[in-house]
Amino acid sequence: MAVKVGQEALKVVKAGEEKAMAEKFVYFFGDGKAEGRGDMKNLLGGKGANLAEMTAIGLPVPPGFTLSTEVCTEFYKNNRQYPAALTAEVNENLRRIEQLMGKRFGDAKNPLLVSVRSGARASMPGMMDTVLNLGLNDSTVQGIIEQSGDPRFAYDAYRRFVQMYSDVVMDMDKEDLDHLMDQMKENRGVRLDTELTAADLKELVGLFKNKIKEVLGRPFPEDPQEQLWGAIGAVFGSWMNPRAKTYRRLNNIPAEWGTAVNVQSMVFGNMGNDCATGVAFTRNPSTGEKVFFGEFLVNAQGEDVVAGIRTPQPINKQQGDGTLPSMEEVMPESYRQLMQIQEVLEKHYRDMQDIEFTIETGKLFMLQTRNGKRTSQAAVKIAVDMVREGLITEKEAVLRIDPQQLDQLLHPSLDPKAPRTLLCKGLPASPGAACGEVVFSAEAAEEAAKIGLKVILVRTETSPEDIHGMHAAQGILTARGGMTSHAAVVARGMGKCCVAGCGDMKVDYKAQQFTTRQGVVISQGDVITLDGSTGEVIQGAVPTVQPELTGEFGQLMQWVDSFRRLKVRTNADTPNDSKVARDFGAEGIGLCRTEHMFFEGERIMAVREMILAADLEGRKRALAKILPMQKGDFLGIFREMKGLPVTIRLLDPPLHEFLPHSEKDLEELAQVMKVSAAALKGKVDFLHEFNPMLGHRGCRLGLTFPEIYDMQVQAIMEAACELVKNEGYLIVPEIMIPLVAHVKELKIMRENAVAVAEEVIGRYGIKIEYLIGTMIELPRAALTADEIAVEADFFSFGTNDLTQTTFGLSRDDAGKFLPFYVEREIFPNDPFVALDQTGVGQLVKMGCEKGRATRPEIKLGICGEHGGEPSSVIFCHQIGLDYVSCSPFRVPIARLAAAHAVLLEEKK
Amino acid sequence: MAVKVGQEALKVVKAGEEKAMAEKFVYFFGDGKAEGRGDMKNLLGGKGANLAEMTAIGLPVPPGFTLSTEVCTEFYKNNRQYPAALTAEVNENLRRIEQLMGKRFGDAKNPLLVSVRSGARASMPGMMDTVLNLGLNDSTVQGIIEQSGDPRFAYDAYRRFVQMYSDVVMDMDKEDLDHLMDQMKENRGVRLDTELTAADLKELVGLFKNKIKEVLGRPFPEDPQEQLWGAIGAVFGSWMNPRAKTYRRLNNIPAEWGTAVNVQSMVFGNMGNDCATGVAFTRNPSTGEKVFFGEFLVNAQGEDVVAGIRTPQPINKQQGDGTLPSMEEVMPESYRQLMQIQEVLEKHYRDMQDIEFTIETGKLFMLQTRNGKRTSQAAVKIAVDMVREGLITEKEAVLRIDPQQLDQLLHPSLDPKAPRTLLCKGLPASPGAACGEVVFSAEAAEEAAKIGLKVILVRTETSPEDIHGMHAAQGILTARGGMTSHAAVVARGMGKCCVAGCGDMKVDYKAQQFTTRQGVVISQGDVITLDGSTGEVIQGAVPTVQPELTGEFGQLMQWVDSFRRLKVRTNADTPNDSKVARDFGAEGIGLCRTEHMFFEGERIMAVREMILAADLEGRKRALAKILPMQKGDFLGIFREMKGLPVTIRLLDPPLHEFLPHSEKDLEELAQVMKVSAAALKGKVDFLHEFNPMLGHRGCRLGLTFPEIYDMQVQAIMEAACELVKNEGYLIVPEIMIPLVAHVKELKIMRENAVAVAEEVIGRYGIKIEYLIGTMIELPRAALTADEIAVEADFFSFGTNDLTQTTFGLSRDDAGKFLPFYVEREIFPNDPFVALDQTGVGQLVKMGCEKGRATRPEIKLGICGEHGGEPSSVIFCHQIGLDYVSCSPFRVPIARLAAAHAVLLEEKK
Repeated sequence: MAVKVGQEALKVVKAGEEKAMAEKFVYFFGDGKAEGRGDMKNLLGGKGANLAEMTAIGLPVPPGFTLSTEVCTEFYKNNRQYPAALTAEVNENLRRIEQLMGKRFGDAKNPLLVSVRSGARASMPGMMDTVLNLGLNDSTVQGIIEQSGDPRFAYDAYRRFVQMYSDVVMDMDKEDLDHLMDQMKENRGVRLDTELTAADLKELVGLFKNKIKEVLGRPFPEDPQEQLWGAIGAVFGSWMNPRAKTYRRLNNIPAEWGTAVNVQSMVFGNMGNDCATGVAFTRNPSTGEKVFFGEFLVNAQGEDVVAGIRTPQPINKQQGDGTLPSMEEVMPESYRQLMQIQEVLEKHYRDMQDIEFTIETGKLFMLQTRNGKRTSQAAVKIAVDMVREGLITEKEAVLRIDPQQLDQLLHPSLDPKAPRTLLCKGLPASPGAACGEVVFSAEAAEEAAKIGLKVILVRTETSPEDIHGMHAAQGILTARGGMTSHAAVVARGMGKCCVAGCGDMKVDYKAQQFTTRQGVVISQGDVITLDGSTGEVIQGAVPTVQPELTGEFGQLMQWVDSFRRLKVRTNADTPNDSKVARDFGAEGIGLCRTEHMFFEGERIMAVREMILAADLEGRKRALAKILPMQKGDFLGIFREMKGLPVTIRLLDPPLHEFLPHSEKDLEELAQVMKVSAAALKGKVDFLHEFNPMLGHRGCRLGLTFPEIYDMQVQAIMEAACELVKNEGYLIVPEIMIPLVAHVKELKIMRENAVAVAEEVIGRYGIKIEYLIGTMIELPRAALTADEIAVEADFFSFGTNDLTQTTFGLSRDDAGKFLPFYVEREIFPNDPFVALDQTGVGQLVKMGCEKGRATRPEIKLGICGEHGGEPSSVIFCHQIGLDYVSCSPFRVPIARLAAAHAVLLEEKK
Repeated sequence: MAVKVGQEALKVVKAGEEKAMAEKFVYFFGDGKAEGRGDMKNLLGGKGANLAEMTAIGLPVPPGFTLSTEVCTEFYKNNRQYPAALTAEVNENLRRIEQLMGKRFGDAKNPLLVSVRSGARASMPGMMDTVLNLGLNDSTVQGIIEQSGDPRFAYDAYRRFVQMYSDVVMDMDKEDLDHLMDQMKENRGVRLDTELTAADLKELVGLFKNKIKEVLGRPFPEDPQEQLWGAIGAVFGSWMNPRAKTYRRLNNIPAEWGTAVNVQSMVFGNMGNDCATGVAFTRNPSTGEKVFFGEFLVNAQGEDVVAGIRTPQPINKQQGDGTLPSMEEVMPESYRQLMQIQEVLEKHYRDMQDIEFTIETGKLFMLQTRNGKRTSQAAVKIAVDMVREGLITEKEAVLRIDPQQLDQLLHPSLDPKAPRTLLCKGLPASPGAACGEVVFSAEAAEEAAKIGLKVILVRTETSPEDIHGMHAAQGILTARGGMTSHAAVVARGMGKCCVAGCGDMKVDYKAQQFTTRQGVVISQGDVITLDGSTGEVIQGAVPTVQPELTGEFGQLMQWVDSFRRLKVRTNADTPNDSKVARDFGAEGIGLCRTEHMFFEGERIMAVREMILAADLEGRKRALAKILPMQKGDFLGIFREMKGLPVTIRLLDPPLHEFLPHSEKDLEELAQVMKVSAAALKGKVDFLHEFNPMLGHRGCRLGLTFPEIYDMQVQAIMEAACELVKNEGYLIVPEIMIPLVAHVKELKIMRENAVAVAEEVIGRYGIKIEYLIGTMIELPRAALTADEIAVEADFFSFGTNDLTQTTFGLSRDDAGKFLPFYVEREIFPNDPFVALDQTGVGQLVKMGCEKGRATRPEIKLGICGEHGGEPSSVIFCHQIGLDYVSCSPFRVPIARLAAAHAVLLEEKK
């Protein structure tokens, strides 16, 4: 595929010619001047835009040019062919580099070598292909030897180029060439690449080329022009490779964005010990501390740092642990210059920067800057610090935090007081805590996750092929690689706990186990715990504690709350959930599911008795037993919510959900209930449903067995009245009738509920308000919301069920095809995760408009799980809901997203 | 209840007074003048309007007045209290009757007696209460004796009045008084009521009154005013009795309509042998023949005919069988007068009339006329005949036929050539054929129907309490009663086969059996067959033949087709279905379900092999076996449809539907497939779904297993190409992708189908058009129809599934509550029978509008079962669909409804 692209690259589409003539496809940068700007990310990609910007603000950037993302788009639109004008533009810009560098591309004396790299709008680390040292062939290598005076360096660069190019562009199996190199080392009796001589490497280049011709049936290209177009084609081609697709899917990046290609003059960090290469962050990306933070390798190419093959040295003394000398010590002048540059960059971009640099014979070059990826904790600290430093506004700080990312902050971390059996220690690459069974491959992780197992993915090192497994795992542990290794960067991006570079352990894939320095053997299936904040790997499971929500986080959330309009409630069924949610800032309960209470402890027996009773009297007897328990639940919840609104949904699931299904359980129940097992089985069978989701549930139960809802309303109202009367609470209970399809259902249920409520109120002799409303969770309810609003004080959009019915998609059964749908981008998102705004959202919007048309003061909320998903929360704001309700841990996410909604509106 | 109403009747609502002053509640008729008119049915009810109209056109009608339906509406609106002005209006109108009749209400010398009857807009035979001879008491009975000179008649009228009034108004148990009468007969040693003397009857009245006071604790009212208001209240009260509610539900009559009450001077058909009473139809209500048709009883009250207690005499010689003398013979002068009147009435009303008359001492009085109920066959014949007679227009004829009623005509009748073991013969009360197991009570009929049994309800006679059982039964057989008995009238209304008055059989409820004159005993559970066209009762099951669709029916359908715009297609899966449908006038196939073919014969094995194959290759091998069979199906269907459009839906149901589920079947399959039963069980279990309706089906299968749809498209296109190439057919196959929720699904499926289709076309080397479209059967598809239309040549609204998803209502599971919903009028209709226009219809309308906005030429149809339901067809016309598609037998119904849609539009 890659080669085909490379060859096709030379063809030019006639059809596109006219359009192309009018457009500019290539943007130059170099020597303090740039045709692009930092705000042209959509066109030039993140890397290209920043190279242009850095150049323009006077930083030392090797000259180069960027093929815009429009080339990529055109390329795919026109069946993988380039715009007509491209060739000429590329050649012209190549000439400008040659002029600035005083070298010539393909020249035998003083050849220009270039790198070819992808660069999309959004950073996609390691996802797409890169080719370095391009322009080398048997003739130009001589020029490099002449210029560098170092034949070993030249042939090392050459053999790297052949390896990289054949892999990336020609689709050659990497192993084939690696094998030749291993053989060579064996023959020479050496262990390290660096021990091979110039002659060895020269011979290796020859062996490589022969092998390539042998395997692929065509020679390695000698012509630098052919090399260049091959590499450009490969980068564009890599936009559609499976790894990139997976990454985009996980990160919601549309395929239409395309990638840019950056062609840049090479600089070498591997020409000797006065050379180096490194990556750094202007602040600590893990904690957010304002400390310059990074790693470098002496005499190395940039890819060596990221690939995690050699363990890099710290960039400064503050950061190191003394075992390896820092750049501050080894190259003090370059370090001083780099410190200045990083300050300039951070002030210029007003955000924490992730930079790449190379030192070629003592001269510092900046290769890249971009907003640095960071942990949630760091993101919050940096944003709040930057407001305090006067760099950004409060609103900017709020917008800087991706609501989804907060999730990481809101989950428990390891209890510091719990005893830990330490196995080994690595780098704290991505914070948080993770616990699970050990697996040793991405495939195993994925398989285990499918059946609900929690696993830790353990690898010597990770590569982009492991992405799907990392996604499936609770946490990642690697033996090699630093804080900027693939595992570390990707895990931080995913908000997953990661311990990287844990040199104390040895992974044996074949035996499916790893061994610690102390000789402890951990096999597949053994449970370990990772502490991403300390880098500790712990045997067994360790208890966790709730996150601290004060400090910078507290400050940020104060700003958030001052900006948002949308209220945020929580879905909570117990006093304990209610408390957690209130601590997270919930402003009420949007959904209290009474059926969860039905399952608890001994109650289930009374519930089963009720269901299986022969007649109304029998049901009433059983309900009388449940009443005081339900009332107790509501007392607890009302107390915990201290007068905040509480919406209680009456019984929703079909009755058979409460019944035992196995023979054994049935027999036990029959004994307890003193009926025959056969009779019980008959009743259970009678209650069986083909499609319980669409069955006898919700208000359909309330209508056919009114005594159940009557009991629940009585319990709610008695609890409320008791607290109002005896403890002086202010409570306005909100009683919610589920699964209404037709206004008549609600009308009858409302009449029943009012009758019971008024009876209770009369009995307590107090004044108390209460609301009666309904879930809008069926398409028909949304479509006829104008009629339904006549009987409803409030609507709560139950978008889980609404999604199921609108798509005709059972959440319980979708596992067999929904992942395929999301992967193939048949659905843009999993509609159970992000609200489908086009379809389901249309119904929600319609429901709001029709509801308000009938009853302008109607309260509108959402209580599906979408209520805690940022894009859905923003949609809820836009269509004018009063509140969203979500699980307790997602309350801060919803609050932040609600603030974003306002700020994004202001931006327009 | 009735008594309470009666007493409340005397109270007057102060609140309503002002409003009532402005309104007129009572309408007088008598002596050739009437305040009402025949077109005031909404206000006066059918009976009242017709009494007014008959009076106005000079027919002999006893004077009276009508309390309008508005009184009923006000009555229920104001908590069962009457408008203030009512009392005065009633008294004033009573006085006008007194003046005309020269009698006085409650007068001891010459008392006026009246009847009090209900009369709703739509006829509801036997549903509501009636009181006759009202005004009798111990004093007025003397006046009647004086006037009639017949104490026995007077006391007989009196005892009847007490019986009727205490039953209807006072809620007395009928049995209590019947028992006293039986005792009296026993004491007197007589068998018939008529053998009791005037003295006996007088004594009986006394006994009755004592018993009433004893049981109810209050006396029988002597005051005629109190009697009158009691009766009026009882009639209004009867509007809400369970029988009436059931009837309204079955006949879609809104509760809001209310009933009128007619108070009319009594005339007596039972004052001697020069008296008679009868009912008649201006044409034969069973066959439609233009023959005056009716029954009468000498010396009887009107209720005696309808109640079916005495077997009545025929009205004319033509009709009788000679065993009983006809009215034409017995009372030739009255008969001549009646013949004239019936001609006047039919010309006046331009429709077949159902009339009631009474002859009092030789003088003919008309008591009622209304459009006569008739069988479908009669309806068609009468409508067509009346066009030929110049009475009505073709459009009127078409509008006269209720499309739903056609159903009766379109089903098979008994094969005249099949041997019949005749059990007995009764009256051919309602035509058609019915076959089923014998049951002896309405309850048993209902129970049996619930579990899917077909039953014949056998009763000595039916009463309104039996309605629900009649509805549940296939046919009704009664031992007593004539062509106008309760059983006959109600069965004709329901379009159910009925044999009535079968005197040859004796029903023994206790033994649960009936015995024929020949001594054959038929017990509960035995199978019999009824021929409603001949009155034959046949032992066992008799084969049936298709209906004749020529003659008047053919003529009517010609007119129908000339008026309608909407095309009518059929849902057919086999060549045989296709043929039946074409004979019924289908203009194409709107839905050909390919999965039905999958079940047939040996195919199911190949299908199972395909489903259980381990990999793609295995599936393809199995599919290759299915391909020629599918192709054969399509060849047959295309041939049968002779170039009419055929829409073929690709595989829709989840795969597990094709798998065996019992242990035994599984083991058998495992043996045939040469795999282990355990492995097979595992695969079957894996395919299990919680909510298959919302599961892995439709295009979700097509996307995950594209080879299945590829095979189907290949089979369709090969069949079409073969016929086009070899037999010169013109075929444009319509390939339909089911269960699309998102345009992307259709886009991919369309691309796949086009690829296969083009390959086949290329192979045959011919030119052929084909369409690719989709079902709109999920709410999301309707909501995003604008996007979906980009990829669809046609939409077919699958309103069955659309109803399930829009309501969140599983058809398979709704049995536990949907009947309750319909009964309680929570849903106005069963939404699976009549399209829910407000909810589901809104989506269909939206789908049409959005689809056309994107693609104005898009073909739009409906293929849910609603496509054959008249109100839904009219809706489809209104929103501009191109066609409806329904089961073959419903095609003529849909055609007629489509014509109605146009004609109703013209009327507006």
